[in-house]
Amino acid sequence: MARLKLTIAYDGRGFHGWQSQAGRNTIQDNLEEAFHRLTGERIRLHGSGRTDAGVHALGQVAHVDVSDPARTPERWINALNALLPTSIRVLRARYVASTFHARYSARGKTYRYRIWAGSVASPFEEGRAWHISGPFDFALFALALRQFVGKHDFSAFAAKRGQKEENTIRRVHSARTRKSGALLVAEVSGEGFLYKMVRLMVGAAARCAMGKLPLESITERLKSPEIRQSRYVAPASGLYLFRVRY
Amino acid sequence: MARLKLTIAYDGRGFHGWQSQAGRNTIQDNLEEAFHRLTGERIRLHGSGRTDAGVHALGQVAHVDVSDPARTPERWINALNALLPTSIRVLRARYVASTFHARYSARGKTYRYRIWAGSVASPFEEGRAWHISGPFDFALFALALRQFVGKHDFSAFAAKRGQKEENTIRRVHSARTRKSGALLVAEVSGEGFLYKMVRLMVGAAARCAMGKLPLESITERLKSPEIRQSRYVAPASGLYLFRVRY
Repeated sequence: MARLKLTIAYDGRGFHGWQSQAGRNTIQDNLEEAFHRLTGERIRLHGSGRTDAGVHALGQVAHVDVSDPARTPERWINALNALLPTSIRVLRARYVASTFHARYSARGKTYRYRIWAGSVASPFEEGRAWHISGPFDFALFALALRQFVGKHDFSAFAAKRGQKEENTIRRVHSARTRKSGALLVAEVSGEGFLYKMVRLMVGAAARCAMGKLPLESITERLKSPEIRQSRYVAPASGLYLFRVRY
Repeated sequence: MARLKLTIAYDGRGFHGWQSQAGRNTIQDNLEEAFHRLTGERIRLHGSGRTDAGVHALGQVAHVDVSDPARTPERWINALNALLPTSIRVLRARYVASTFHARYSARGKTYRYRIWAGSVASPFEEGRAWHISGPFDFALFALALRQFVGKHDFSAFAAKRGQKEENTIRRVHSARTRKSGALLVAEVSGEGFLYKMVRLMVGAAARCAMGKLPLESITERLKSPEIRQSRYVAPASGLYLFRVRY
């Protein structure tokens, strides 16, 4: 047995997210099916974390234990890509120590979020960006997003997943925004993120930029995490898992 | 009657190009059909020029004569976009003098060409960039493309359309290339372009970058336009009509 680390990109449109689900077309199921067709074995893939339906990845990471360590990483890449739909691509592969775990060894993640702020939608951004057609203050969005940098209790910016009580303290390392024409790309890095946290952060910053939420509301919610009313989850279409750091 | 100038973006995938064709799904047909549904009239749209099947536009320009000049440009934009497929968007509209002609008044055009030069294709660039998986010298591509700047006889870089003898002298104002990761974007501006000229220019420059054509071959063909063997037309998927200058 040998442990293989994979870096994967996917266009999340048309998939029911990362996580394997009976009868659903998920990224994990497509990858496991490709391994099955290649090796004849049913192998379990372990991702760095889930992505929801419609969320994209430029650098999702997963590991898998394979019984054919003679196959070179390049041969795994080519063989998997030949079987996968073109909307899922294995970008890199390498053998790692058996102590490596895609989820538990992760030291940080970077997400990108794309907003198309123009009166008319772009034909090239459908399902790939959040289209905001009304007034939008780019500088205010960038400023609002920067409020999240630091160590905070993010429970006002997290959705509950299951009944499990979770530690909701997280550290956001950076939150940068750049603009090119009508396209805004926000990049957020942190040690780890709670469920729907990036989309709730972007949702709040965007509502500031639209003039629908005062900037202070963000800092108040970081100080008083019990405030949970009128939250706004930005759409899945704009979110990209950009990089997992180990 | 009033003349309306439209600026249009489209994702060329799934369309049989710009030009109206019986029984084919073209950009022009979709736009004329939207005008028909709005006004009840059969109106002819005049584009700045054709784009081939699979070629995209970020700023195609067309004009049309409408009998309802009371409708504001914003109302035309919203009404047309409500009827058009989301892969075609009217970005801007304004009333112009009846002497304006989308094709004959054009003073120049800018095209962009996107190349994804990475061993693995991007799931986000399918049908939107030319994927080159082998060795590719970015700097050599940029240098090769710059050879086209100036006034030349471009007949070695043009496809014949019909039997018409045409003046094949054109002036290319600029040919710039920028790179972001595996993505290369070339931008070419000129007074006007012959049929398939940008794709033949990019095809030649790319073959230099792949080590399959000496750089001198380009300058030789510009001096001796009768050399027409082993030409390479870059795929339609990477080409974008970016702007028409008036």
